Amino acid sequence: MLEIGSIVWGVHDISRAVKFWSAALDYQLKYPASDDWAILIPKNGNGIQLSLSKVSSPKARRHHMDLFTHNQKAEVERLLALGATKKEWNYPPGADYTVLQDPDGNPFCVVQRPF
Amino acid sequence: MLEIGSIVWGVHDISRAVKFWSAALDYQLKYPASDDWAILIPKNGNGIQLSLSKVSSPKARRHHMDLFTHNQKAEVERLLALGATKKEWNYPPGADYTVLQDPDGNPFCVVQRPF
Repeated sequence: MLEIGSIVWGVHDISRAVKFWSAALDYQLKYPASDDWAILIPKNGNGIQLSLSKVSSPKARRHHMDLFTHNQKAEVERLLALGATKKEWNYPPGADYTVLQDPDGNPFCVVQRPF
Repeated sequence: MLEIGSIVWGVHDISRAVKFWSAALDYQLKYPASDDWAILIPKNGNGIQLSLSKVSSPKARRHHMDLFTHNQKAEVERLLALGATKKEWNYPPGADYTVLQDPDGNPFCVVQRPF
């Protein structure tokens, strides 16, 4: 099972974006933000996450989806069979995500749920 | 109240994207797709919509959020006060959406719920 768990939203200024989007959606930080990453979650517990990701391109507008699953390996195989492709990526040690592209070349991530 | 109701996902080939994403997420068409637009909804009723939008740029990767509300006028005013700006847009007659930009210049829509 695969769910849209988060939108990853490209921004230039993380603290400004945290302020704006938490007020706009009545969301709050999941844990303290870093300089280039923050995860906002709904205060009332209903809804997907909004992840704020620092991007360097002049136009922010670099967004993708994170799809959450309890069975990453099987879901990645299933998506590849459906026409997704693997995207070259420098994974940090212990990365919980795999970067794929849809048939249009749009990147998205398949993220292993921790439990 | 404002909710992330849909991700609008840029693609080149609507029918290919419908096929891929409906299988990937176990979603189905909300109503018949047109040549440049399709809305997918979860078969089990749980989760946000995925709207597929035909884009002409070489890289698809043009995505935004649609925020749903029962009170569009008040929410738009609230968002403008928070630092959003109105984006110039040619609205078709009867449009149910307003296009704003977040403080980083990322467009998003505020959509009036029909009921």
